[in-house]
Parts: sequence; C-alpha cells; structure tokens
Amino acid sequence: MRQRNLSLVLHAVAEHGPLSRAAVAARIGLTRAAVSTLVDELARAGLLVELGRSRAGTVGRPGSDLALSENGPAGIGAEIGVDRLAVCAVDLRGRVRVRAEEPAEHRSSATGPVLRGLARLCARVAADAEREGLRPAGVTVAVPGLVARDAATVVRAPNLGWQNLDLAAALAADLPLPVAVDNEANLGALAELWLGGHSPAPRDFVHVSAEIGIGAAVVVDGALLRGAHGFAGELGHVPVRPEGRPCVCGGRGCLEQYAGEEAVIRAAGIEQRGSAGAAVLRARAADGDRAVHRALRGAGAALGTALAGVVNLLDPETVVLGGALAGFAPWLLPAAERELRRRVADPSRASYGEIVVSGLGRDGPLLGAAHSVRQRVLDDPAGSAVTAAD
Amino acid sequence: MRQRNLSLVLHAVAEHGPLSRAAVAARIGLTRAAVSTLVDELARAGLLVELGRSRAGTVGRPGSDLALSENGPAGIGAEIGVDRLAVCAVDLRGRVRVRAEEPAEHRSSATGPVLRGLARLCARVAADAEREGLRPAGVTVAVPGLVARDAATVVRAPNLGWQNLDLAAALAADLPLPVAVDNEANLGALAELWLGGHSPAPRDFVHVSAEIGIGAAVVVDGALLRGAHGFAGELGHVPVRPEGRPCVCGGRGCLEQYAGEEAVIRAAGIEQRGSAGAAVLRARAADGDRAVHRALRGAGAALGTALAGVVNLLDPETVVLGGALAGFAPWLLPAAERELRRRVADPSRASYGEIVVSGLGRDGPLLGAAHSVRQRVLDDPAGSAVTAAD
Repeated sequence: MRQRNLSLVLHAVAEHGPLSRAAVAARIGLTRAAVSTLVDELARAGLLVELGRSRAGTVGRPGSDLALSENGPAGIGAEIGVDRLAVCAVDLRGRVRVRAEEPAEHRSSATGPVLRGLARLCARVAADAEREGLRPAGVTVAVPGLVARDAATVVRAPNLGWQNLDLAAALAADLPLPVAVDNEANLGALAELWLGGHSPAPRDFVHVSAEIGIGAAVVVDGALLRGAHGFAGELGHVPVRPEGRPCVCGGRGCLEQYAGEEAVIRAAGIEQRGSAGAAVLRARAADGDRAVHRALRGAGAALGTALAGVVNLLDPETVVLGGALAGFAPWLLPAAERELRRRVADPSRASYGEIVVSGLGRDGPLLGAAHSVRQRVLDDPAGSAVTAAD
Repeated sequence: MRQRNLSLVLHAVAEHGPLSRAAVAARIGLTRAAVSTLVDELARAGLLVELGRSRAGTVGRPGSDLALSENGPAGIGAEIGVDRLAVCAVDLRGRVRVRAEEPAEHRSSATGPVLRGLARLCARVAADAEREGLRPAGVTVAVPGLVARDAATVVRAPNLGWQNLDLAAALAADLPLPVAVDNEANLGALAELWLGGHSPAPRDFVHVSAEIGIGAAVVVDGALLRGAHGFAGELGHVPVRPEGRPCVCGGRGCLEQYAGEEAVIRAAGIEQRGSAGAAVLRARAADGDRAVHRALRGAGAALGTALAGVVNLLDPETVVLGGALAGFAPWLLPAAERELRRRVADPSRASYGEIVVSGLGRDGPLLGAAHSVRQRVLDDPAGSAVTAAD
C-alpha cells in the first residue's frame, strides 16, 4: 500500500505538477499528513524537490510547490537500428539530457561487435548523465525484431540476422544497469501514447513503424497488446499479394516485400543497397524523381491494403505512421489512404481514411525506450531508489 | 460495495457451487456473518436456494449447501440468422430450458416482418420459461452485422440488407423485456470463453464465425476487443486477393468473396442459391463430391491467408472456428492450416499451425446471447431482482 501511495504522489506531480502538498492530497484522496510523510520519503530518495513558496491565494498555510527532481533517476533508452546505434538519457521530468548516435551497418552483422558498441555507447551516455547529476536507473533497448515476453530475449531479428539471443544477459556483462529489451514498434507506440501530444491521447490506435522491416503495435484502451508470446504487431508479414514475392519469413507476398525500405529502393531503380540506397532514395524523393515517387505510391498502396485488413479487424480510433517511412509521407500517404477508404467495411467512418504521421520522427522508439524506464521509476519509486543506492 | 459483494457471492456459487456459507466466506474473504446476510438477500430475490444439509466432515456447524436457483431469472438469447430465427432460455445454472427455431429466408428482407417474427418467438419462449417457473430477465439478440457500441443499433448487416436500425427500440415495442444487441461473432466468442470446455480456458484467442458472412471476434486477456466504434472483427473484409472479386462492402478481393458460404456454393458449381444451395453443399460434401471438396479447399486456403495476417498481427494463443463453416472442417481445415503454417512469421510456434473447431456447433452465438443475460444477472443481482419485481 505504501509503495502504491508513493507512486500515486509521484504520478500526481508528474502529470499535474508543480503542486503543493495540499493539492497532491486533494488529487489522490489522502490526508495532508499522510502525503507529507510520503513526500518526505520521496524527497530523501531524490525523486521530488521543493520549488519554494507557492503563490498566495490558496487555502490554508502556503506550502512549498513540489516538482519531480531534475537530478534524480534517469531512464536510458537505446536503439539498435539497422543502420545506427542511438542512446539517450531522460530525466524524471521527461527531458532528454544526453543523446549519442553512431552510424552503423547492422545488416546481418555478428552480434559481438554490435553489443560491445552498444554497451560502450550506453556507458558513455550513463557517465555523461551522472556528470549532469543524474542517476541512471536502467536501460531499455529497442530492437527491430520479435522479443519474447521475458523482455530479454530477441527471438528473431531477420534484418539484423539474429536469433534466440538473450540480449539482456549479453549486455549485463558490460553494463552495470538493469536491462530490458522490447520491440521497436512497441516502444514507438508507447512514445506516441506518452509523448505524442495528442489531446485527448487516443486510447485505441495502431502504430506503424516502418523502416526496412515494417512493424506495428496495437494499443487497446491505453495498453499495448503484446500477444500470447509477445510477438503481436508483425504487420510486415501480413500477406498483401498472396502469390507474390517470397519473403525471408518463409511466406509469400508479405507487406515488407512491397513497402519495406529495401523494396522501395529496388522498385525505384536505385542501384545502391543498404544505408547508401536509403540516402539516395531520400535525396531523389526530395528532388521530385518520378520513378521514386511511383515506387513510393506502390509502397503506399500495399501499406493501405494491409492496413485495411487491420482496420476491419481491430476498428482502431486512429492509425499512426512513424519510423523512417514517415519521412516519405507526402508520397506514400495518399496512396495508402486511397486503399484504406476503398477497402474498409464501413466507409461512412470518415476518420478511417486518414493516417496520422507521428510527430516524434525517427526517434519515437528511442524516446519510448528511455521513457519506459522513467515510467518504471514513477510506478515503483521505492524499487528504483533501492537500485540507485546499490 | 453491497452490490459488489452480492455479485461475489453469486459468482462463487456459480463457479464452484454447491457451497456452504462458510465455504463462500472463505472463497471471497468476508466474514461468515456478512455472507449470511448477503445469502439471505439473494435467497429472498430468488437467485440462490439451499439444497439442504451439506455432507459431514466439514469444520464447524454443518451448514446448508447453496446453489443457484433453477427457478430464478432466465436469460433469453435470440439469433437472427440469414436462414433462421432461433431463441432459447437458459436458467441461472446455465442450462437451456426452452428452445425454439424457425427456418426463414432473411436475405435482403424487409425489417418489419423479421422483427415481428422475432418478437413473437421471443414472447413464446419467455412464456414457456415462465411456465417452467423462470423469470425472463432480458433478451440479447445476435445479429450478423456491425453493431454500434450502444448495444442497440445495427449499423450495417449487408447479408440481411439492413442499415442504421435501432433494433433494441424496434423490439421493445413488442416485447416487455430489456433488449441488448450484439454481433453474432462476438457472442460466439463469449460462448467459447464461458462454455467452450477448454481447460484452462484460452484468454487470448481469435474466434472465426463463418456462415454467409465471415466474422471474427478477438478476445484479449479474457475480454472482447470491441474496437473504437464496436466494429472490430470484420475478418470477412480482410483483403486476400487485392485485385480480385468486387465485394458488397465496396472493396475488392475480400475473404468473404472466397470463403463465405455463397462463394463456396458458387465455386462448387451448385446451381441453387441461398439456404437451398447450402443444403446441397452439405449433402454433396458428405457424399464425397470432388468439386465441392475442391471448392472447400479453396475456401480454406483463402481463410488461412487471412488468418495468417491476423496471427502475425495479434499473436493469439489459439484460433477457433465456429459457425456453419465449422461443419466443413474436415475439408476446409487442412488447406487453412497449410497457409497459416506457411505464412506465419515464426513457424517454430507449433501451435500456430492449428485451428481448433468449436464444440458448440452452430448454436454458439445463440448460447452466447442467452448467457450474456445470465452474466449480467450474476454481475448485478440487485439490478436484475428489481427488474424481476417490476
């Protein structure tokens, strides 16, 4: 019960602060005295700070306003992208305080060097965060692949060429912090939920996270639908041309073969592959290259066909497009929306024809990873204080 | 709080009864005295009965065993099928006490006669239930179409030819009972959850309910995923041949055009349409007609392609096949399972290649409808007692 009340105080300040003790007490329905005890404990643990006297005009003795600490625990988010490593640290107020990124070529790479590089980058960001007065509370790693429900094992990341890798254990050897692992589309969706800036935030949406692979995350009533094995959201392997191109997954005509970044690069007639090809694709799209625009329209149509199935099946409020493909929205989206309108069982639902582009850009999964650590601290402040004291 | 405790007592007896007062108290964590007061109230309302002395050997004064009443409230379930009306009454113990069915031809029929026929059949079943000593507590109607989240409005039932019909209000005129409306696939899934006889009951599954239309219901963590507008589960309009046959929904290549009953009748070269065609299909399938078996294999492959998308997206524990198509499982399922195995992103998940056939037969949605009324009584016994006393 005490744990729960500590978390209630922290969430009240996180979502509505700065707040006086009396205002916190009113919000969470505890006595002023009980709140004071909890606040003292949270302040001692370095999670809350007093901002000084609050403004006059409030009822009773003026209290000091409470805010989350800028020098408390930090959430470290990391992303193993197909062509980059990125790591950031957010403080309890949700502000990004440190960020580091390295270009890389991870297609079918050996795990050893990638993991050592990631551990090194995480350690650097953690050290920088400590120099800023923060205490790193844990790392969450975003991976483009299937992650088991243990939040540790990468079951399959075809575009990295990884299989059955206990990533949490592998990183723990080089990194003295608790490590959790999640699918990048899941973390992108959580970022959209927490930071998307929608008001009111949609509670039921499908978040498409497209890069080389195409992932999705389904949010139902404000919570991620993870699936029985943790593998939900494999939009990239929804068949859109059932007897079409063979896919790395063993199937045929999967969406990824028509709307994934490599498929678009190929369809646009670009000779380079990998990140070089992606750079050419971006440059030519911006230059108005017609072959590139045609390829993007084709990708959009395939995406819209797959999304029509998703919308017919799940009836979400909104579909949000994030990740690298979001940068191609001007060419991709009209074709996708046309397919969606054409194929959704009840076209009277006007909102169904629209796909919203995420405002978080390519960093959605990275931010979601860092914020998932921050959320764990807010949900279990005592646990994180113990971790910090270790 | 009292309402909640009344419901806790009732659910304890429903799920584990017969039970003594002491056993109920132990199960729900209230005092024996508190439970006795609640039991007395439930007995006065006719929801619980005492079976007489319980067996010796239990601790303390031997109490009387409690059971749900066989003469209490009844749930009336109704189904507007495309070729039948069916109505049943279940008692609090979950036993079907009355059942009536009329063949019909509802394809593109005027609503008036259908609704009058349904009201008449419901009234007859309710009267029979009263003669058996039961008190009908409400009616839930299963409809093959989109039902809004108000549990009253049929937004679209293409195979009946209905649109934007407040079915609850229309029936209320002829029927002095509270009426709720739900999609037949949803009710089929709830029946599977409550009565499927699986042990342990799957908490995450997709229930396919196939007849002329093909619907599905998604159950996540033991609860129906209804979607933002109540329209989730439109599996029949998931595209499986994107540039294939035009569909009544306005799209192209929808699953229904390849695996719906009418599509199969056509593909099998049967000249009759409607219920006559369905009868010929059943007879020839049983007779080993090769054209019919080929048509069913084609339908199975289309179903498997759509389900591969569903499984990749939702990662359910199980896929359950119910409704009329379930009767064709011997010919349909191998082809569906082959597509599913071929197309699911992680073929190492052995259970994914299997589709389970519902044991409830064609009556799943009808039973789900009646039991949803029973569940409402168990969840809110005071409310239903008031209704009964009106």
